[in-house]
Amino acid sequence: MPESPTNLQAALSAFMDEHVYPAERHYRAHTESAADRWSIPPIMESLKSRAREAGLWNLWRPRDLGGRLSNREYAPLAEIMGRSLIGPEVFNCNAPDTGNMEVLLKYGTQAQKAQWLEPLFEGSIRSAFCMTEPDVASSDATNVRCSIQRDGDNYVVNGRKWWSTGAPDPRCKILIVMGKTDPEAARHTQQSMILVPVDADGVRIVRPLQVFGSDDAPHGHAEIVFDQVRVPADNLLLGEGRGFEIAQGRLGPGRIHHCMRLIGCAQRALEMMCQRTSSRTAFGRPLSEQGTVRADIANSWCEINQARLLTLQAAEHIDELGAKGARDLIAAIKIVAPTMAQTVIDRSIQAHGAMGVSQDTFLAEAFAYARTIRLADGPDEVHRVSLAKHVLGLYTQ
Amino acid sequence: MPESPTNLQAALSAFMDEHVYPAERHYRAHTESAADRWSIPPIMESLKSRAREAGLWNLWRPRDLGGRLSNREYAPLAEIMGRSLIGPEVFNCNAPDTGNMEVLLKYGTQAQKAQWLEPLFEGSIRSAFCMTEPDVASSDATNVRCSIQRDGDNYVVNGRKWWSTGAPDPRCKILIVMGKTDPEAARHTQQSMILVPVDADGVRIVRPLQVFGSDDAPHGHAEIVFDQVRVPADNLLLGEGRGFEIAQGRLGPGRIHHCMRLIGCAQRALEMMCQRTSSRTAFGRPLSEQGTVRADIANSWCEINQARLLTLQAAEHIDELGAKGARDLIAAIKIVAPTMAQTVIDRSIQAHGAMGVSQDTFLAEAFAYARTIRLADGPDEVHRVSLAKHVLGLYTQ
Amino acid sequence: MPESPTNLQAALSAFMDEHVYPAERHYRAHTESAADRWSIPPIMESLKSRAREAGLWNLWRPRDLGGRLSNREYAPLAEIMGRSLIGPEVFNCNAPDTGNMEVLLKYGTQAQKAQWLEPLFEGSIRSAFCMTEPDVASSDATNVRCSIQRDGDNYVVNGRKWWSTGAPDPRCKILIVMGKTDPEAARHTQQSMILVPVDADGVRIVRPLQVFGSDDAPHGHAEIVFDQVRVPADNLLLGEGRGFEIAQGRLGPGRIHHCMRLIGCAQRALEMMCQRTSSRTAFGRPLSEQGTVRADIANSWCEINQARLLTLQAAEHIDELGAKGARDLIAAIKIVAPTMAQTVIDRSIQAHGAMGVSQDTFLAEAFAYARTIRLADGPDEVHRVSLAKHVLGLYTQ
Amino acid sequence: MPESPTNLQAALSAFMDEHVYPAERHYRAHTESAADRWSIPPIMESLKSRAREAGLWNLWRPRDLGGRLSNREYAPLAEIMGRSLIGPEVFNCNAPDTGNMEVLLKYGTQAQKAQWLEPLFEGSIRSAFCMTEPDVASSDATNVRCSIQRDGDNYVVNGRKWWSTGAPDPRCKILIVMGKTDPEAARHTQQSMILVPVDADGVRIVRPLQVFGSDDAPHGHAEIVFDQVRVPADNLLLGEGRGFEIAQGRLGPGRIHHCMRLIGCAQRALEMMCQRTSSRTAFGRPLSEQGTVRADIANSWCEINQARLLTLQAAEHIDELGAKGARDLIAAIKIVAPTMAQTVIDRSIQAHGAMGVSQDTFLAEAFAYARTIRLADGPDEVHRVSLAKHVLGLYTQ
Repeated sequence: MPESPTNLQAALSAFMDEHVYPAERHYRAHTESAADRWSIPPIMESLKSRAREAGLWNLWRPRDLGGRLSNREYAPLAEIMGRSLIGPEVFNCNAPDTGNMEVLLKYGTQAQKAQWLEPLFEGSIRSAFCMTEPDVASSDATNVRCSIQRDGDNYVVNGRKWWSTGAPDPRCKILIVMGKTDPEAARHTQQSMILVPVDADGVRIVRPLQVFGSDDAPHGHAEIVFDQVRVPADNLLLGEGRGFEIAQGRLGPGRIHHCMRLIGCAQRALEMMCQRTSSRTAFGRPLSEQGTVRADIANSWCEINQARLLTLQAAEHIDELGAKGARDLIAAIKIVAPTMAQTVIDRSIQAHGAMGVSQDTFLAEAFAYARTIRLADGPDEVHRVSLAKHVLGLYTQ
Repeated sequence: MPESPTNLQAALSAFMDEHVYPAERHYRAHTESAADRWSIPPIMESLKSRAREAGLWNLWRPRDLGGRLSNREYAPLAEIMGRSLIGPEVFNCNAPDTGNMEVLLKYGTQAQKAQWLEPLFEGSIRSAFCMTEPDVASSDATNVRCSIQRDGDNYVVNGRKWWSTGAPDPRCKILIVMGKTDPEAARHTQQSMILVPVDADGVRIVRPLQVFGSDDAPHGHAEIVFDQVRVPADNLLLGEGRGFEIAQGRLGPGRIHHCMRLIGCAQRALEMMCQRTSSRTAFGRPLSEQGTVRADIANSWCEINQARLLTLQAAEHIDELGAKGARDLIAAIKIVAPTMAQTVIDRSIQAHGAMGVSQDTFLAEAFAYARTIRLADGPDEVHRVSLAKHVLGLYTQ
Repeated sequence: MPESPTNLQAALSAFMDEHVYPAERHYRAHTESAADRWSIPPIMESLKSRAREAGLWNLWRPRDLGGRLSNREYAPLAEIMGRSLIGPEVFNCNAPDTGNMEVLLKYGTQAQKAQWLEPLFEGSIRSAFCMTEPDVASSDATNVRCSIQRDGDNYVVNGRKWWSTGAPDPRCKILIVMGKTDPEAARHTQQSMILVPVDADGVRIVRPLQVFGSDDAPHGHAEIVFDQVRVPADNLLLGEGRGFEIAQGRLGPGRIHHCMRLIGCAQRALEMMCQRTSSRTAFGRPLSEQGTVRADIANSWCEINQARLLTLQAAEHIDELGAKGARDLIAAIKIVAPTMAQTVIDRSIQAHGAMGVSQDTFLAEAFAYARTIRLADGPDEVHRVSLAKHVLGLYTQ
Repeated sequence: MPESPTNLQAALSAFMDEHVYPAERHYRAHTESAADRWSIPPIMESLKSRAREAGLWNLWRPRDLGGRLSNREYAPLAEIMGRSLIGPEVFNCNAPDTGNMEVLLKYGTQAQKAQWLEPLFEGSIRSAFCMTEPDVASSDATNVRCSIQRDGDNYVVNGRKWWSTGAPDPRCKILIVMGKTDPEAARHTQQSMILVPVDADGVRIVRPLQVFGSDDAPHGHAEIVFDQVRVPADNLLLGEGRGFEIAQGRLGPGRIHHCMRLIGCAQRALEMMCQRTSSRTAFGRPLSEQGTVRADIANSWCEINQARLLTLQAAEHIDELGAKGARDLIAAIKIVAPTMAQTVIDRSIQAHGAMGVSQDTFLAEAFAYARTIRLADGPDEVHRVSLAKHVLGLYTQ
């Protein structure tokens, strides 16, 4: 079993080469041909078993929450997993489950942990996070309309959420829902978070949402209606009015994990661009000898490398200062990495010709992933404002 | 019936408002729920009838080929149609049928016209154009591998094509196929074009290709194998060795029509961005009052307007000088318009939040369309080289 | 003598080739070696005489103000003149004199015209426009601090201005000064404009300002102090409180003339890039065969051409609707043209190697000119906001 | 005296605050008002004495060449010095002297060291590096035309060089000249380097070159003619045919020092942008509250930070692997840092309004510096090609 972070990188890369990349095709084929698009390709569960046996399981769990690795040590591993869109789940390191597990680890009661965290750690169930709403600008948390009202020993949840990633997955059992317990409270204490079993009465998955025409089955992104959904009061996380606080904590590492994975996507796209342009000939010479192709390759290498260094620095700061102390760097990588990945993947698509937008490579899916992350967990604009305020504070008094 | 080009613009806009935009939702719903994704939504045929009755039919056909309008007059109409992804077909002005009809008009025999051009004019059948191949860089026409071999009174076609847009459409009856009749001939006289009925023996549609995860049903893009396909020698267009010449002629107007439509896409995306940001509030004020949103709007307006003017100039040059004489401007708009559209639509997506990448607006599809056109009919790179050579020739002797 | 606009273009181009480009070197040599950098190179006055004789004089004067040409007809001429930084003055078409003449034409009294406009028309004196102030954000006209106070039959001017282009020129005789006659009035009626002879008591030119290290002698840009400067009340233009109104009118055509000239700068920079890269060899082939050079050439051609078309459209709208009715297009070209020129010239600099930043070509000066215009007559940001508001108004109600 | 690298950073920053920034104004005033622009402002020599006393002298000298610090330790110090354009010289760490000292350290004989290196270490003389030529594309070393011919115990140098930075400085005593000893030899062994005293017969400084109109007095950039210049054969460095090899070695650290300084320039420009926009008000609120200003600040912070991390990584690799082993990262920062600095400074200029292009801030000079470095020591294009080849090699076999 690998022990040092460097050994882990080698072990993980070898596992990806041997098991994950070759499985991509089978995974996709299952979804395309299965009677039910929303069934889980059997190869996924077998990959998970293998990863667990190889000691490559739950690597995301930070040392201060009982795990083996610091964020800085985990970052290159997340990048390696992120090179395949099916990679992170194989190692039980995929969004939104890691973020949800972190919430339960930090804020869950013993009972909540026993019921939901353990099976999540095992990878035997999946979860979703219900924050974004269709009718308001969700980048501003005070806009949340979903209501969580106390009624005796219960809370009653009413509202409509969308972009609840993973909710359509047949293994998804539990939702963490953000809503307002007190719309009259101060701006950031109106919100609370609550655990809602996906099979509770009144929870209705309305439809799967598409990203550039793909439904991302079998995980997908759901629009969900909560219609008089009643859950025990014990399901509330941390306490009334503390939803915003939990969201802040949850999103710190979540953002950074996405950025790490996107660097993996961009890196793979660059490698593919090199291979493709070296093996195709037009007008008498390989594409890789064209000046604009070379400029694309050189610029991509520079951009990826810079984003990687920035992400590692952010991870280091989280380890040293906590998510709050590292919030300028977290904002910075959230601004930088998705756009960088979108740009690099776009260049690789261009180098692949029409094949680049098709289902025959991972590029189109990776592009959609990068594009989506520019909107998820706060759009670019919000992070720019927040970083700018911080920088202005540093250099003016 | 509208007569002047300006009247036509008003009539077309009114028709779009009244009939086309409201139909988008029904069209999509049919494809999503039909037993067969590849069946044609009935609303399309009824829209086509209505358009024909309204005299808004085959407007693409240039005056010098028996039509009513010059390219310059048609351009703003193509933009208006292009504002909806289902628009062009309603008016029998969609790719690749317009390009194919133009080829038949210019190069077809009387018999070929009677058999294929008439029903295409009527909109009762559809066609596809088979040029791009999966195994070579198709930007260089000398790379074409498909063979067209004379055998007595027949030609025998062997090869594999992909990105044959419209071929999976159940109404598609005829393919124009590019192949080599003489691989030993001079660089640009190796190729020929031939008419192949889609139901000829040996024609096999292997699979629909996806664009960012969408199969674009019910038209789609096919991968097609031609396995010993035998057609009468009369099916050859114009003569052996003249395929490159036909391709050049065909692509001139085809490129410009795509650019016009993309300007319509970008314009609609801008209008949607204005409406969305005016109606959403975050942090106490409408998004439209944020400085970066305003900058996006102003920049988009400038970029759209410039690309439109360039496209109109290109259309004018085609009218005056022919496609060959206008080739620098045709290259220029092909470089400019798709990237401009991609950029503007990307901004509008960002302004829409997660809804922007979903199936709930036309933005995601329009983005995929713009992205694809940067690869279709010659990738950006090829047009840049060709324009640069022309410009260098102008300013140096 | 040339008559039609097209003839004028040919005549002007021929004049530039024969007289202006060859004079650039002599003009610069005079300034570098003269005892007084701020003396006028004699070649300028001889070029002016020649241009007047050739009927190429005061072409900027619009037909509705007694001139021969519409704005649309003038635009290509301004572009041709703008190809040389000494060009516009040769034809009495340089900033800020054209703008100042326009103000006097529109708003001057008979006496004011006789005293100042006639010699300006003759080219025997020069003028400056004193608007920008060093201590406030001058993009907001309500920030103006200079005061113009009535005192009996006089006005007394006090304040500090900078970036008064042309004020250090020894032929400069008259300043148009913007100040506040009533700081308590409504936002846009606090300001007035007044004529101040440059030799009035209390006018002190503090120093010449530099643009990227160049003082732009012998015209230059002055910092000027007005210390209890007393001028007759008749020197006020149009009336108290109408300064903002005059500024708006003055800047419309002024902005467009700068844009036209900058398109000329960019076009010349592109031509130079073509010539340079065709004549230099590295690593065994001309630079012009490198893919990135070709991409720069193609992109520059597209960008110049688009900006030119937009500028022509703006000129046309001014002719048809007046400056106010064309204000969205005026804002648009002011956003587009200077940045486009900066970008294209930057590419040409790169293609020229170190020579590109030196005094040996016109590129470094042209770059500084383009960069400066992004700040003059309203910075880019202000025009973006103003255009965005207009566009938002169009597409939302 | 400071000892640890971190202490050195603090000491250097304090020295900059106390002595260097306040001296900038005096330094400039001397050059503007002195009888001879090419005399050295006395304040420079007094700053140098002070720096030497403070133990902040020759910090650039790498540990493996007898210095105190590694490249990685020096990098943040170079950034701090680079915040002022007069900073590096104060600490005897300015180009081209550091590069020239390194050449002498590595390749000089004892006699050469005694005669030239010692006074350079002392800061009592200055030097220049004569590589670029006006008539050829100097990015390709095989284009060099300058000849160095053996004649008995001497070499005779003939040729024309330009952009010899520092040569016009009155303290400059020695030139390192690149020329060809054998034009018939293999591509990279034709060139040699030789030491030429600036006062040797036949050395003629033709003129100072300008960068965007500034002559950068009193150091400047010279055009120099070598007309039958005869120097002892002992002046040859390392041996005939080894000039290319020396150039490669010399440029490695030289490139990285420029990049470090440019990061300092960009960082200072960002701080100035924050201060300026916080203190200026337009349309009722500080500029720093405008969304586009905030976006500029946030983006600049991200870009600076990324370039800094990349530069530190390059320095580390040089320490570990030598300049040759780090050549991909050296190319990468040379591609990234100058363009990043140009962009960030350009934004800061925009935020400063017209003052930004004037002599009143360091921005215009810093901009010119950044722009120039995109051409010096190999233009961007050459580094992109070289990096791309390396990356292609990594990912394809």
